[in-house]
Amino acid sequence: MSSHRSSAPRLRAAVVGASGYAGGETLRLLAAHPAIEVATVTAHSSAGRRLSEVAPHLDLGEDLVLAETTPENLAGHDVVVLALPHGQSGEISARLRESDPDALVLDLGADHRLESAQDWSDYYAGEHAGTWTYGMPELPLADGSRQRDLLASAREIAVPGCNASAVTFSLTPLVRAGLVDHRALSVVLPVGYSGAGRTAKQHLLFSEAAGGAAPYGVGGTHRHIPEILQNLRRAGGPDDARLTFTPVLVPMSRGILAVATAPVAEGIGTEDLLAALESDWGAEHFIRVLEPGAFPSTQQVTGANTVRIGATVDRRSGQATVIAAIDNLVKGTAGAAVQSMNIALGLPEQAGLTRTALAP
Amino acid sequence: MSSHRSSAPRLRAAVVGASGYAGGETLRLLAAHPAIEVATVTAHSSAGRRLSEVAPHLDLGEDLVLAETTPENLAGHDVVVLALPHGQSGEISARLRESDPDALVLDLGADHRLESAQDWSDYYAGEHAGTWTYGMPELPLADGSRQRDLLASAREIAVPGCNASAVTFSLTPLVRAGLVDHRALSVVLPVGYSGAGRTAKQHLLFSEAAGGAAPYGVGGTHRHIPEILQNLRRAGGPDDARLTFTPVLVPMSRGILAVATAPVAEGIGTEDLLAALESDWGAEHFIRVLEPGAFPSTQQVTGANTVRIGATVDRRSGQATVIAAIDNLVKGTAGAAVQSMNIALGLPEQAGLTRTALAP
Amino acid sequence: MSSHRSSAPRLRAAVVGASGYAGGETLRLLAAHPAIEVATVTAHSSAGRRLSEVAPHLDLGEDLVLAETTPENLAGHDVVVLALPHGQSGEISARLRESDPDALVLDLGADHRLESAQDWSDYYAGEHAGTWTYGMPELPLADGSRQRDLLASAREIAVPGCNASAVTFSLTPLVRAGLVDHRALSVVLPVGYSGAGRTAKQHLLFSEAAGGAAPYGVGGTHRHIPEILQNLRRAGGPDDARLTFTPVLVPMSRGILAVATAPVAEGIGTEDLLAALESDWGAEHFIRVLEPGAFPSTQQVTGANTVRIGATVDRRSGQATVIAAIDNLVKGTAGAAVQSMNIALGLPEQAGLTRTALAP
Amino acid sequence: MSSHRSSAPRLRAAVVGASGYAGGETLRLLAAHPAIEVATVTAHSSAGRRLSEVAPHLDLGEDLVLAETTPENLAGHDVVVLALPHGQSGEISARLRESDPDALVLDLGADHRLESAQDWSDYYAGEHAGTWTYGMPELPLADGSRQRDLLASAREIAVPGCNASAVTFSLTPLVRAGLVDHRALSVVLPVGYSGAGRTAKQHLLFSEAAGGAAPYGVGGTHRHIPEILQNLRRAGGPDDARLTFTPVLVPMSRGILAVATAPVAEGIGTEDLLAALESDWGAEHFIRVLEPGAFPSTQQVTGANTVRIGATVDRRSGQATVIAAIDNLVKGTAGAAVQSMNIALGLPEQAGLTRTALAP
Repeated sequence: MSSHRSSAPRLRAAVVGASGYAGGETLRLLAAHPAIEVATVTAHSSAGRRLSEVAPHLDLGEDLVLAETTPENLAGHDVVVLALPHGQSGEISARLRESDPDALVLDLGADHRLESAQDWSDYYAGEHAGTWTYGMPELPLADGSRQRDLLASAREIAVPGCNASAVTFSLTPLVRAGLVDHRALSVVLPVGYSGAGRTAKQHLLFSEAAGGAAPYGVGGTHRHIPEILQNLRRAGGPDDARLTFTPVLVPMSRGILAVATAPVAEGIGTEDLLAALESDWGAEHFIRVLEPGAFPSTQQVTGANTVRIGATVDRRSGQATVIAAIDNLVKGTAGAAVQSMNIALGLPEQAGLTRTALAP
Repeated sequence: MSSHRSSAPRLRAAVVGASGYAGGETLRLLAAHPAIEVATVTAHSSAGRRLSEVAPHLDLGEDLVLAETTPENLAGHDVVVLALPHGQSGEISARLRESDPDALVLDLGADHRLESAQDWSDYYAGEHAGTWTYGMPELPLADGSRQRDLLASAREIAVPGCNASAVTFSLTPLVRAGLVDHRALSVVLPVGYSGAGRTAKQHLLFSEAAGGAAPYGVGGTHRHIPEILQNLRRAGGPDDARLTFTPVLVPMSRGILAVATAPVAEGIGTEDLLAALESDWGAEHFIRVLEPGAFPSTQQVTGANTVRIGATVDRRSGQATVIAAIDNLVKGTAGAAVQSMNIALGLPEQAGLTRTALAP
Repeated sequence: MSSHRSSAPRLRAAVVGASGYAGGETLRLLAAHPAIEVATVTAHSSAGRRLSEVAPHLDLGEDLVLAETTPENLAGHDVVVLALPHGQSGEISARLRESDPDALVLDLGADHRLESAQDWSDYYAGEHAGTWTYGMPELPLADGSRQRDLLASAREIAVPGCNASAVTFSLTPLVRAGLVDHRALSVVLPVGYSGAGRTAKQHLLFSEAAGGAAPYGVGGTHRHIPEILQNLRRAGGPDDARLTFTPVLVPMSRGILAVATAPVAEGIGTEDLLAALESDWGAEHFIRVLEPGAFPSTQQVTGANTVRIGATVDRRSGQATVIAAIDNLVKGTAGAAVQSMNIALGLPEQAGLTRTALAP
Repeated sequence: MSSHRSSAPRLRAAVVGASGYAGGETLRLLAAHPAIEVATVTAHSSAGRRLSEVAPHLDLGEDLVLAETTPENLAGHDVVVLALPHGQSGEISARLRESDPDALVLDLGADHRLESAQDWSDYYAGEHAGTWTYGMPELPLADGSRQRDLLASAREIAVPGCNASAVTFSLTPLVRAGLVDHRALSVVLPVGYSGAGRTAKQHLLFSEAAGGAAPYGVGGTHRHIPEILQNLRRAGGPDDARLTFTPVLVPMSRGILAVATAPVAEGIGTEDLLAALESDWGAEHFIRVLEPGAFPSTQQVTGANTVRIGATVDRRSGQATVIAAIDNLVKGTAGAAVQSMNIALGLPEQAGLTRTALAP
C-alpha cells in the first residue's frame, strides 16, 4: 500500500504479544494505516523468530524480528499495544510509564476494563490493576456525551472484550430507553475459534471443533458479564440489570453473532426498537442498523470494523430479539484499538479501518 | 452388516423422497436395521436414476433405482416413509391407504404434526391435513403415560420437527414441574445446514455458509413454535406458555444445539433442574442428562440417536439455562422415525439405532 | 478509507456481473482503490436490486442499484470489467466499443484468453471470440520482455484463469530453464468453492461440500490446460509440453494450492529450482519465492494479491515438487484484473492491492 | 445395538491409547462388533479419567475408566490393540507376550510395518522393532495368494499406515500389470486433520486450519513412502519403483483422497486401467472400482470401511490418473485393524464393519 500512503513522518508503534491472534490482527490493520509505522514487535516463547515465520500472512518486511518483551525494547514508541493474557499488562505498563510518560498504551487484555475491584475479584482473580479509559468510542454516556470524548485525551486505553462489545451494541439502546425488561436479559452468542487464542489446547483442535457447536462459560460465569453491565450503567441504564450469557463455539475462525432476547414493555413494537438503535447508533460510521425484517450474519463483517444490527418484536411471545454481528478480531479487538488510538492521537477516527468485509 | 443379521423374513419398506437428506438418512439407518428390507425408493426429479448415483455413501445395492412416487409403486409394503416437502404427504397417503390399509405410514414432513387447524393456518398455509400420532416416544403425557404407548397401535405417524424435538427435550421437564417462567421462554439454536434440505439455493452454498453464522426465521415466525407449545401442553404444562425462538445457521452439516433460557422460580437451583430432567428422562435409553457443570456439544451425537442435556441456574441473573444437543437428521428426523416405527411394528425400540456417535 | 484517499478526480468504472463472486471481489478491491470510482454495477437476474442486498459485505453506498447489462448502461466509463460466464463477453464488448472506443475493457471470463481457435474449439464450444492482451503482468516472454510491457498499451485485457495462474507461476521458470521433463508435468490442485461460482448447484451446497474432498475435471478435460501450455510457450518454453491436471474441491471458500511434480533433469537439485524461480520472480512485488524447505499454504494469501511458491527436489524419486498458493478471487481473478488495469491506465501497478492476507 | 447381538460369549479386547483418535475409532467400531467386548482401555496422561469424559461420543458405559498402560492391566485379553506413537509398541508387546502368549496383538503404529531395517533407519529413527504380519487383507501377493491368507494365522499384526493404504489401493494393480511407468509415480493427497492426531499443536488448531490448504512432508520425506514401495514389491511389482508423495492438510476431520498420476505405457487406455483394478479388487467386499468417468470423493466413505477408486487415461498428456478415497480412521486405521482381527480370530471378515458412510 506504500504507493498511496502519506509522506508525513509516521508514528512509531510497538505491538506486544505479536505472535498471537489479537497481536497479529493489530499488525494487519497497522500495516495498512497511513500514519503508523510498526517499529517493534515482541513475544514471549516466539522471541527471536522472524515475524514473517510466525505470521506469514503479514507483509511487514522480512527483517522484523520478535524481540523479548522488556521495558528497554518498548521504550521510545508513540504507541504501545499490549496483546497479553490478562494479569500481565499491569507490570509492563507501569515500567513503560517510567521511560515514556507520554506514550499511548492500549491494553487488549481484560486487566483495566472494570471499574469495580469487587467485580474484578468475582470474575477474575488476583489484584485489580486499575481502570483505564474504555476503548468504545460510540458508547453513549449518561451525561449525553460519548465515550470518544474521553478517549481524546486518554493515554491509557482498555480495549473492550469482544463478546462484551457485541452485546453492548445490541442491548444498550433498548435498555437505556426502557424498552425491554432489563432484569431478564438473555444472550446466546455463536462465536468463532480465534477468540479462544492461539495457544494449542486440545478442545481447539480442528478435528475437535469441525462439525459441531460447543457451549462454554455457561451459567453466569463468563467474565464479560460485569463489563456489559458496567457499559449499560455508564450509558445511563439502570443499576440492577441482569443478564444471562452463553457463548457457543461454532466452526468458524472469526465472528460473533450476539442474539439477545428480553421481554418487551407493553405496547413496544419493532419500530420502537429500531428507532432506539437508530437514535444511538445512526450517526456512527461503523455501526449499521438494518431495515425492519433484516438481520445480520457474521460473513458480512469479516475483516471489517463494522457492527451490523437487526431487531424485532415477536408479539406472540412478548419478547424482543436483537442480533448484532461483528468480527471478534476487528471491531471486537484490534479494530476497536486502532479506532480508539486514532482518537487519542488526533488522527481521523477511521484511519486504517474499513467497512468493507472479505466475502465469500 | 449381513454377516450378523437375523435370518427371519424382513419387513418391506419404501422410502419416498429418497434423494433428499431426510430420505437418505432414513435409508442409512434402515440399511443397518436387522428386521427391515428396503424394497422401494422413490423420488421426483431424480426418478429413473440409480440410488447409488444420488446417494453414493449408501450401500443398498447397485440395482436399486429411484422410481416415480406413484400409488402403484408404493403398494405392497409393510412400511412407507414419506420424506416430502410439507403439503405433499396428504394426498399420497390417502391413496396409499386405499391399496394398503394396514401399512405403517410415517411422515417426516410437517403436515400431520399439529392438532390445531388454526395453528396450521397461522404458521403454514393451505388446508390442514389432519393429525397423526406424534413420533416422540419419550414425551411424557399429562395422564402419566408416554407417547410410546400411543405409538404402539399407530398406523400413521407424524415424525417431529428437528428443532421442535431439541427444544421439547430441553424445556418440557422444567415447564411441567413449574421450575421456570413459562411465559418467558427463549431459545437460540445453532443449527447445521442439512436441516435446510438438499435443494440448491444460493444461501446454502458452501461459499456463502462457510466462515459465518446466519440467523433465520427470527421474530416468532418459525413453524416449529406451535409444535413445541403443543408438546408442552400434551405433557401437562400450562396452556399459555410463550416462546421466542431463533435458529442460527452455523457451518456444520449436522447438529442442533438448543440453548434455552428462562427466569427461574424463587429458590430454584441447578439441582432442581437436573432432578426434573432426570425424573422425566432418566429411564430413557436415548436421552442422557449430564452431570452438574457439564454441557453437551453436537459433536457428541453426530450419527447417533442420542439427546444429551445439561442445565444450570445462574443465580446472579435469576435464569435457568438448559442446553440440548441432537443430530438433526437422526434423533431429529430419521432416527425418531425408526424408533417410532419399531414401536408400531412391535420390534425392539432400539433396533437399528445407536448411541455411538461418529467423532472426530 | 476516504480519509487517506487522493483528492484527484477518479476514473469511472463499471462492473458487469456484479452479483457474482468475481464481480463482487472486483468491487471489494475497487472500493479501496485510490483512483477509481465505481459508477455502475450491472447484473442479470438480480437487476433492480440494491447492491447492498446482494453483496452486504461491501460498502459502496446504499444507493448503488444493479442495472441491466445494456450498452446504454455501460457507456461513458473509463473502465469496464466483465464478470460473465464464458461466451457472453464478445457481443457486449463489441457493442461497447462502438460507443466508447477508448474505454479499457477487462474480461474476467475465458472468451479472449486463447490464441488458438482450435484450442478454443477443443476445450470450449462455439466460435472463438478472438484474443485479447493477457492480464498476467509478471509473465516473462520469449523475447526477454514481460507481459506488463504489452499491457501498458492494451485497451482489451483477458484476465487469466485462476487455476491457470497458479500453475503458470509454479512451472514456467522450471520449464523455461529446462530443469524438468516438460513432457511429464503433473499438477493436483486443492481448490476452494468460490471458484465454482455463486449459481446454486447441488454439489456446491455446504452440506455436500463440508467434510470432504471431491475431484472434478479429471483426465485432461479442464479448460485451463491449453491456457497453461500457451503461457509456457509464450515464455519461451517448448512447444510440446504435456500436462495432466486434477483440481480437487476442498472445504474452503477461497484458495488454490497448485502442487506440481515433474521428473528433474540429471543432476538438478532444489537450489536449481529455487534459482530459476528467483530469477523469473525475484523482482516481482506480488510473487514471493520461499526459502529452501519452506512451502506455502493458502491461509497465507487469503484476500491478498500474493503468490507464494516453494520448491524441492526429491532425489530418491527423481522428481521436482513445486507448490504455489494464491487466492483464486484475488491474484487468481480480481486482483490480476486490477493490477493489469493499473498498468493499462498508467497508475501505480500496486494501487488498490495488498500483500497482507487475512488470517486466521 | 445390544438388541440384535449374538448371545455367544464375547472375546475380551483391550485398547491401549484409547484417548487418541485411532484408539477412539477402534472403540467406536468394537462397540458395534457382535463378537467383541471392550474389557479394558488404557491411556497415558488421561489415565484415571472415565472414558465417557474423554470420548463422550462413545457409548461403552459410564463405568469404563482409563487405566495405566501396564502389562498387568493388559493381561488376560483375547485381543490387544496398540494405538501408540511409533517407538512405543515394541516394549509393551514384548512384555505382553510373556503373560499372554496367545493373545492377538495389533499395532496401529508404524513400528512393525517395514521389513527393511535400512528403510526403518532412513525414515524413522532408533532400532527397528521387527516385522509383523501386514494388516491389509486385500493385498495381492506375488505368489497369487492374498495377504489375508497370512493374516489367518497371525498373532501379531502391523496395521498399515493410512496414506500408504490409499496409495497402495490406487497404484498396485497398475504397477503389477505394467500399465504405468513405475519409475515416475506421483501422488498428491488432500488429507483431513484427524490423521495428525489428538495432541494439541498450534498448526492443528481450528483457526489455523480452517479456510486453507497446507502441504507437509514435501519432498520425499514422508514415512509412508517405503511402506508403499514395499507393498508394490510384495504384490509382484518391480523392485525399483519410484514415488513422489505430497500430503496436503485440508479443512476436514476425516478422509484421504489419493490422486496418483504416472505416464502410461504406449497404447494403454482407461479401460485397461479399470480392468486391472477390477481384476485385483473386483471380488473384494470393501473395495469398489467405479465406472469409467466416475471418481470418488471422501464424503462417500466417511465412517465406512470402504475404498472407492476411479481411473482414467488422459491421452493428450500420456498420463494415467487414479484416485482413491478412504476414511483415514476406518479403512486407513481402525477398520483395517478390525478386518484383520476378524480374519486372525476366525470371525467373519466383515463383522463390525460397514460399507455405509455417514453423509452429509
